[in-house]
Amino acid sequence: MAFSSHKFTRSRIKGLYVIVDADVVGERDIVEVTRAVLRGGAGTIQFRDKLHDKGDVLPITRRIRQLCGSFGASFIVNDHIDLAIACGADGVHLGQHDIPVPEARDMLGSTYIVGTSNALLEEAMLSISQGADYVAVGTIFPTKTKENTRAAGLDMLRRVKASVNVPVVAIGGINKENAREVILAGADALCVISAVVAAPDPEAATREIMSVIES
Amino acid sequence: MAFSSHKFTRSRIKGLYVIVDADVVGERDIVEVTRAVLRGGAGTIQFRDKLHDKGDVLPITRRIRQLCGSFGASFIVNDHIDLAIACGADGVHLGQHDIPVPEARDMLGSTYIVGTSNALLEEAMLSISQGADYVAVGTIFPTKTKENTRAAGLDMLRRVKASVNVPVVAIGGINKENAREVILAGADALCVISAVVAAPDPEAATREIMSVIES
Repeated sequence: MAFSSHKFTRSRIKGLYVIVDADVVGERDIVEVTRAVLRGGAGTIQFRDKLHDKGDVLPITRRIRQLCGSFGASFIVNDHIDLAIACGADGVHLGQHDIPVPEARDMLGSTYIVGTSNALLEEAMLSISQGADYVAVGTIFPTKTKENTRAAGLDMLRRVKASVNVPVVAIGGINKENAREVILAGADALCVISAVVAAPDPEAATREIMSVIES
Repeated sequence: MAFSSHKFTRSRIKGLYVIVDADVVGERDIVEVTRAVLRGGAGTIQFRDKLHDKGDVLPITRRIRQLCGSFGASFIVNDHIDLAIACGADGVHLGQHDIPVPEARDMLGSTYIVGTSNALLEEAMLSISQGADYVAVGTIFPTKTKENTRAAGLDMLRRVKASVNVPVVAIGGINKENAREVILAGADALCVISAVVAAPDPEAATREIMSVIES
């Protein structure tokens, strides 16, 4: 594979995991928003775009990949394995309705990071048995960012953390006020979207959550 | 690559090329609609779905791939290279806003068929120079099936046909009434959607156009 060794040098998913979602970013420049959250200390960036065609976003993903590289952050593309390969991302994130992990792994080989969205312990266990490198668990708290999310909660986060040996990413409604209790429930990484991407100052908002994580 | 030799055994794009579009198929069973157009004589099937998640349509694409195989037809997936690989399609079709041909070819290798949508001679020439195996030219006639299509017309079809050495697929508003003049303008294959997929009897509608092509 052309894009190798990412996984072994940068696969540890921990700290702050930010989804730069085109819909949440809205009129702002998604590359500049990404730069701000990287300056604020995010360790992983996930690019999610359900609005635009893949050829149109490919140049943007390549700029974000470069940015992540210069900050030493991991870069994950949501859903689209083809886009992830084309832009040289470190990995893909797959929801329960995306291409399944075994098929994704066949395409990506062992060097890419593959993560999954899970609301149930059984889902998390299955995706790990199929080769997922990390599992996202949520929705931890009610949120308006993504439609059709299912509730998981802190108890499910604890159950998953107690059962798996890959990084567990908590997602859904996480902000600086509740970040501490999510960490105490066992999250290896906190995933945020609106809390920083929709903030007036994404860099400052990222720093605030990072300070909770690091304390 | 796991899925080899398709291109050399089944790549000749000619006759009738039918796009089974989930939006046009609507409430009907897309697999049964596909079976009907294959019975009617279609030589190429393109699966296009902009409505559903890829993991949800993967089992459907696999059934359609099997059907195409049993009829000796080529099976092309629109837009999604990852879905095409996961279901074992013969190739992908890429619009001007999809992943570009060079990146697609890197992922697919030489065994998959890669086709492109073109409204201009320059677009068709570029995609062939980048490795496209066939070029679709359209919109030939005004149509309501796909939004944001650009006009090409029969003159553009003639210009492309005179300039390229790969199969030229005419698309846009083609039906049994105008099929003859499109063939006379140089089309190697006619692409239809609504004319057969939205017909009360897709098999009969396919046969009617096939009889124009074969006459």
